[in-house]
Amino acid sequence: MKNIPLFLIGCGGVGRQLLQHIVSCRSLHSTQGLCLRVVGVGDSKSLVAVDDLLHKGLDDSFLLELCRVKGAGESLSKLRDFGACQTFVHPESQGRILEIASQLGRKTGLVFVDCSASSDTVSVLKQAIDMGCCAVMANKKPLTSTMEDFKKLFMYPRRIRHESTVGAGLPVIASLNRITSSGDPVRQIIGSLSGTLGYVMSEVEDGKPLSQVVRDAKSLGYTEPDPRDDLGGMDVARKALILARILGHQINLDSIQIESLYPKEMGPDVMTVEDFMDRGVLLLDKDIQDRVEKAASNGNVLRYVCVIEGSRHLLFPFFTMCEVGIQELPKNSPLGRLRGSDNVLEIYTRCYSNQPLVIQGAGAGNDTTAAGVLADIVDIQDLFP
Amino acid sequence: MKNIPLFLIGCGGVGRQLLQHIVSCRSLHSTQGLCLRVVGVGDSKSLVAVDDLLHKGLDDSFLLELCRVKGAGESLSKLRDFGACQTFVHPESQGRILEIASQLGRKTGLVFVDCSASSDTVSVLKQAIDMGCCAVMANKKPLTSTMEDFKKLFMYPRRIRHESTVGAGLPVIASLNRITSSGDPVRQIIGSLSGTLGYVMSEVEDGKPLSQVVRDAKSLGYTEPDPRDDLGGMDVARKALILARILGHQINLDSIQIESLYPKEMGPDVMTVEDFMDRGVLLLDKDIQDRVEKAASNGNVLRYVCVIEGSRHLLFPFFTMCEVGIQELPKNSPLGRLRGSDNVLEIYTRCYSNQPLVIQGAGAGNDTTAAGVLADIVDIQDLFP
Repeated sequence: MKNIPLFLIGCGGVGRQLLQHIVSCRSLHSTQGLCLRVVGVGDSKSLVAVDDLLHKGLDDSFLLELCRVKGAGESLSKLRDFGACQTFVHPESQGRILEIASQLGRKTGLVFVDCSASSDTVSVLKQAIDMGCCAVMANKKPLTSTMEDFKKLFMYPRRIRHESTVGAGLPVIASLNRITSSGDPVRQIIGSLSGTLGYVMSEVEDGKPLSQVVRDAKSLGYTEPDPRDDLGGMDVARKALILARILGHQINLDSIQIESLYPKEMGPDVMTVEDFMDRGVLLLDKDIQDRVEKAASNGNVLRYVCVIEGSRHLLFPFFTMCEVGIQELPKNSPLGRLRGSDNVLEIYTRCYSNQPLVIQGAGAGNDTTAAGVLADIVDIQDLFP
Repeated sequence: MKNIPLFLIGCGGVGRQLLQHIVSCRSLHSTQGLCLRVVGVGDSKSLVAVDDLLHKGLDDSFLLELCRVKGAGESLSKLRDFGACQTFVHPESQGRILEIASQLGRKTGLVFVDCSASSDTVSVLKQAIDMGCCAVMANKKPLTSTMEDFKKLFMYPRRIRHESTVGAGLPVIASLNRITSSGDPVRQIIGSLSGTLGYVMSEVEDGKPLSQVVRDAKSLGYTEPDPRDDLGGMDVARKALILARILGHQINLDSIQIESLYPKEMGPDVMTVEDFMDRGVLLLDKDIQDRVEKAASNGNVLRYVCVIEGSRHLLFPFFTMCEVGIQELPKNSPLGRLRGSDNVLEIYTRCYSNQPLVIQGAGAGNDTTAAGVLADIVDIQDLFP
C-alpha cells in the first residue's frame, strides 16, 4: 500500500469538499493500493496536525468534524479536544507548517495541497518544494505572482500539479502538458474561462440588456457578491497567465491586455455595489447592444475570451500575444456555439491545425474543483515510495 | 538526466512517426531532463537492437535510416551494416525480445512501445510487464483480447499507458483516469470514435445517398481499402470495449452489440470489394435515407456512436450496457453538431451531469497517434530511476 501524506492549506468550500472526497474514496483508493493520509490542515489563522507525523493521519471522523466546524464558520482551534491532534494558532502555525514540511519532505514525501485563495501561501510552497515536498494547487495566486516565484515553484516540474487553477476539474493543464511533451507546438489557445462571463455573453447575444443579464446572474448566484469582480476580467487574466506561462511565455499579469466590461469611473473605489447595479450598469447597455448587433451583421457572436498565441518552436517560445476581452467569433465555432456557463477551450497545434482540440464542460463549482485536485494527488503517486 | 530505455514493436506509419518525433524532440526533452534511449526496434519478421543494452541507444541517424528503409517497404535486416547493432530474424527475434525485457526490466526499467496492429504482441507484453517493464500502446488488439489478458496487462496499472488506442492523441483515457481516480462516477459515455463514420453520417444528413458518400470517402482516403472494415463497426467496438473495461466492466468483445451498416449477405466472404462498391452499397441507400428523414422529423440527426453506461458506484461497477451503432441524437448536442471527421466524446458524471464533459478533435492520423504515444512515454517517467 502506497502511503501519501497530505497537508491541506485552506478549508473553504473547495478544501472541505476535498476532505469529503478523500474520505468517501477510501475504499476506492485502497483497491488501487493508495492511502491518502491527511497529516494536517491549516487556514490563515490556525492549524491542526497529527502528533505522530510519520505514521498517523487525522482520522475520518475528525476530518468530517473539521468540515462541520469550518462550515459553521468556527475556528480550527475548536477541534482541540476532538481526537488526537495538536493545534497551533497564528503566528505559531506558520513555523509549524515548515517544520512538518522539513520532517516529512525528504523522509516520506509530503503533498502540500493549496485550496486557499491567498497570495500568502507562495512562500511556504516554495520552501516546501525545496524541502522535497510536492504541491497540488487550486489556488491561482502563487502561479500568477512574479516570474521568479513561478520558476521557483516549477524548479522540479513533476512535483507541482495545478489542474484546478484553470477550468476547475476540466483536463486543461493535463492536456496541454501532454501536447507540449509530445513536441506538438501550441499555436493558439482561445478560451471562455469564466462561467459568469460565458452566461452574460450568451444572454446579451439573445438581445437582453446587459444590465438585466447582470442582475439575473447576480440573483442566480452566478457572480461574485460584487459582479464587477467578474466583469473586470482579472480572474480570466490570471487563468490566461497560467496557460501562457506553461507554454513558456515569461510574462507577468501586468503584460496582459485586459478589457474590463465597466470603465474605471464605475470602479469599486468610486461606486458602491448598489450604485453600480442601480445606475452604472445601465449606462453600459447601449454600447454592448451596438457591438452585439455589429457582430451579428458579420455572422458572428461576441464572447469574452482569453487569446494566447503560442510559438512554432517549443524550445524557444517568444512572447507574441496574451489578451483577455471581448472578441467577435464565428457563430459556428465551438466558442460561438457556447451557451450558458460551461467553459470551452479551443487549442490549435500542429496536430490540431484546422480543427482545434476542444475541451468543454463545467469550469467551476466546489465539487468539480476538488475532484481536479484529488485527481492531481492520485496522479503524483509515482513520486512516493 | 533521466534515462528511459524504449523498445518499439511495429514500425508502420505510427511507429516511424514516433521515431521521428523522438529524434526531433531530443533537445526539448533534454531541457526537461529526459533522454529517450531507443534500444531496439522490431517488426513481425525481424529485430534490430543495440549491442550494449545497458548504456547505449540506436543513434538518431540510424533511427532515421530505419524509417527510410521501412518506409520503402524493405526489411529491418537491411540495416545490418548500418551502425553498431545486432539484427535477428524470425523466429529467433521473438526470444531476443524477451531477453532484452529480462535484462533491462528490473535493472533500469524498459518501456515496450506497441505500435503494431497485431494480436500477437499480447504474450510478449504480458511477460515484459511481469519482468518489471512498462508498456505504452497504440495497438488496440491486446487490450481487446480476453478479460484474462486484460487483467494481466493491468496487473500494475501505473505501468501501462494506452492513450492512442482511443481517439488517437485526444486526451480521452487520461481524462477518464482522472475522473475515476477522483471518485467521480462515470454515468454514461457517448462518442463518435470513427472519423470515417463521422464523415459518412454527417454527409448522409445533408441528403447525399450513402453509396455516393462511401465512394467519396474511399477516394478521399478516409476509409480502409475495403470500406466495409469501417462500415462494420468493429474498430469502434474495440474502442468501446477499452473504455468499458477501464470503467470496470468485465466484458469481452462478443458481449458488445454491434450494428453493422451492411448486412451479412454483403460481407467480404460473399462479395468482392468491387462488387460491394458497384452494387451492394446502392441497396443500402433507401434504408439510410428513410432513417435520416425520420430522425430529422423528430428534430434529430443520426450518428454512429458507442454508448457505454457506467455505474453510480465506482467500487462495484455492474455491467449495464455497451453498444455500438446508429443513434438518433439531438441536433443541438455536441455529437449532433459534429461535422466531418473529428472524434467527439461526451462524458456524463456526477460533476458533469446535465452538461457533459466534451472532448473533440482529430482522432486519427499517424502524427496525432504518435504524439499520444510520446506523451504517454513522457508521462510514465516517474517510474524510472
